[in-house]
Amino acid sequence: MKPTKTLQNMQPSYIREILKAANSKDVISFAGGLPSADSFPLSLMKDSLNKMPANAQLFQYASTEGHPPLLEHCQEHYQLTPEHQSLICNGSQQALDLIARAFINPGDKILVEAPSYLGALQVFSLAQAEIVSIAALTDGENISELARLLSENDIKIFYAVPDFHNPTGACWPLDTRRQVAQLCRDNNVTFIEDAPYRPLRFSGKQLPLVASFCPEQALVLRSFSKIIAPGMRIGLVSAKSAWIQALIKVKQAADLHTNTPMQALLLDILQHPDFASHTTELIQRYRERYQYMAKLINQELSNYAHFDQVEGGMFIWLKLENCDVLKLAEHALCQGVAVVPSSVFYNQATSQPSALRLNFSHSPKDKIALGVERLALSLKRFC
Amino acid sequence: MKPTKTLQNMQPSYIREILKAANSKDVISFAGGLPSADSFPLSLMKDSLNKMPANAQLFQYASTEGHPPLLEHCQEHYQLTPEHQSLICNGSQQALDLIARAFINPGDKILVEAPSYLGALQVFSLAQAEIVSIAALTDGENISELARLLSENDIKIFYAVPDFHNPTGACWPLDTRRQVAQLCRDNNVTFIEDAPYRPLRFSGKQLPLVASFCPEQALVLRSFSKIIAPGMRIGLVSAKSAWIQALIKVKQAADLHTNTPMQALLLDILQHPDFASHTTELIQRYRERYQYMAKLINQELSNYAHFDQVEGGMFIWLKLENCDVLKLAEHALCQGVAVVPSSVFYNQATSQPSALRLNFSHSPKDKIALGVERLALSLKRFC
Repeated sequence: MKPTKTLQNMQPSYIREILKAANSKDVISFAGGLPSADSFPLSLMKDSLNKMPANAQLFQYASTEGHPPLLEHCQEHYQLTPEHQSLICNGSQQALDLIARAFINPGDKILVEAPSYLGALQVFSLAQAEIVSIAALTDGENISELARLLSENDIKIFYAVPDFHNPTGACWPLDTRRQVAQLCRDNNVTFIEDAPYRPLRFSGKQLPLVASFCPEQALVLRSFSKIIAPGMRIGLVSAKSAWIQALIKVKQAADLHTNTPMQALLLDILQHPDFASHTTELIQRYRERYQYMAKLINQELSNYAHFDQVEGGMFIWLKLENCDVLKLAEHALCQGVAVVPSSVFYNQATSQPSALRLNFSHSPKDKIALGVERLALSLKRFC
Repeated sequence: MKPTKTLQNMQPSYIREILKAANSKDVISFAGGLPSADSFPLSLMKDSLNKMPANAQLFQYASTEGHPPLLEHCQEHYQLTPEHQSLICNGSQQALDLIARAFINPGDKILVEAPSYLGALQVFSLAQAEIVSIAALTDGENISELARLLSENDIKIFYAVPDFHNPTGACWPLDTRRQVAQLCRDNNVTFIEDAPYRPLRFSGKQLPLVASFCPEQALVLRSFSKIIAPGMRIGLVSAKSAWIQALIKVKQAADLHTNTPMQALLLDILQHPDFASHTTELIQRYRERYQYMAKLINQELSNYAHFDQVEGGMFIWLKLENCDVLKLAEHALCQGVAVVPSSVFYNQATSQPSALRLNFSHSPKDKIALGVERLALSLKRFC
């Protein structure tokens, strides 16, 4: 028995492969999108886990939508209107997959920013979408190109990460958010707002969701992986009820429902009196790590590379002179530092700028210093 | 934005709908495939949950395959050869969905027993398979029909539940297992052996897996939902490595990996010194409930219905004279007892025998008595 043609054409994730190599203790990993394990709110979990066996119903089959008290909390916390509904998923990755399975017919056109989140590209490929790319909208210059693309093509969905983009770390300014929403409304295009990094802002001012300007056109994906812990695999998708009902039908067949004990644990953490200070400390830690890495890059790598400042998230997008970034990343791995080359974030092989994605959230400062030092050796050789 | 054509054609699960209605406190539910919440091994979970916050790595991103110590345990416990590998899923429902997504091209022919597990029919429909049905193989009479079907049609996969079938509770005899395996080998057909009820044998002798007679042709799905707790959503699929690698590629896009804390908890339960006695008590309880329900049916319903004895699992398949089973089930719900009509377990509308699926694992004896009494009222009216 052979895999489907679609699957045969799909490459395994380069990032997952590099993460395996990066697991070696001698390697400093700037590769994964990993939060700092030191920052998981473990002390906020204790009471919840201890009392869990007293509630047998948490271990029974449950409704596909999700754990009702968690759904209620989210409805209130995210100020969703009664016309909007949410579905709890195994991480927001599953939400994205369910959207693709529920709404994308083979050949449907999906617009993404290039570079883009690799997991989204995989999902859209599996759904046999036709992927259309546009350069990053961050500085607002490409809005006219977006207008042209949307009016001239039969684009069904625009997928984007407006807050602290993966891989670039960029954040859309307010004007861009308004303009994108307006263009989606004008062209009847659905906007998927993937917002896993949104709570990780460490400077600048929080901006409204793009979806807030086009609530009838948007699906919002939220993750608890970055602010709490990814191993729990809990994410949330919110949209108008008719769309969520379609996702529920697919999820029912996909896995019946998301595990309930982790949903109950998540809710207890979100409602814990110390959750706010956990968040503050986490963001403070990421700010410090970012600033430290940024300083070292400026000191040690500025002859070879530059980057745009970021205001949150987990990544620095290190721009290089034109070079073979795959070979550079392999060389760096041999030096003992794992990074992700820009090429994996593009759907098409053409005109990809040379860059590396560096994660600053996972490693403590001493490892950041050592990693940048090792990276400098590779850059000297390749750039 | 409209759902895909495939999804528009898919009906929501009647069982999930009836389960919602059955949630009312006044209704006695024989409808769900629910284990007894009184039998969850909650006392075996305490130490594991208490020590969980001490292990931050359980909450970090993890490998798609599953938690390595759990995989090792399963490899040994199920005596898998080195050529075979496993993947941890969100319940065996997800394993089934991943198989369909990895291997079924639209139009591929999938053979199922009729009646069959509804969740499997949904998954195969979503994958746009052509579903071919065969009558139950339990008594061995239909083996020649199977031979004909497999030789005359281009069947890619045969999906079956040989141990305590859902919905009929039937168990394939040894000869049937050997013959089915041989036919799959002869015709190069993949056999999906869905075995969630296999550990729930309360009389008779354990029989070998069909897969044990055709290990290179088979995928085996195992569930921990029936013997431990379904809310944890942990299942396992095992097969030759090349097939598991294909499933891993799909799972990576579908949800990255199954949540790790529940995998660690599951392993601790499986390795707990009291797990064997938990299993013995659970099976003893189900035997008692089955025998009690069987006795009451024989006493109160024998004028209208009959059933074949079962040796395990969760279900009695109550066969009736020809009647409108959907209306009967609705009437029974009004009387305060939820049952599942046979029609929902058939892919085609034609020649469906009238029957009801009754679950005996979920309700304690007093509720079983009251439920059968209520059901008698409906049967008197309809049969």
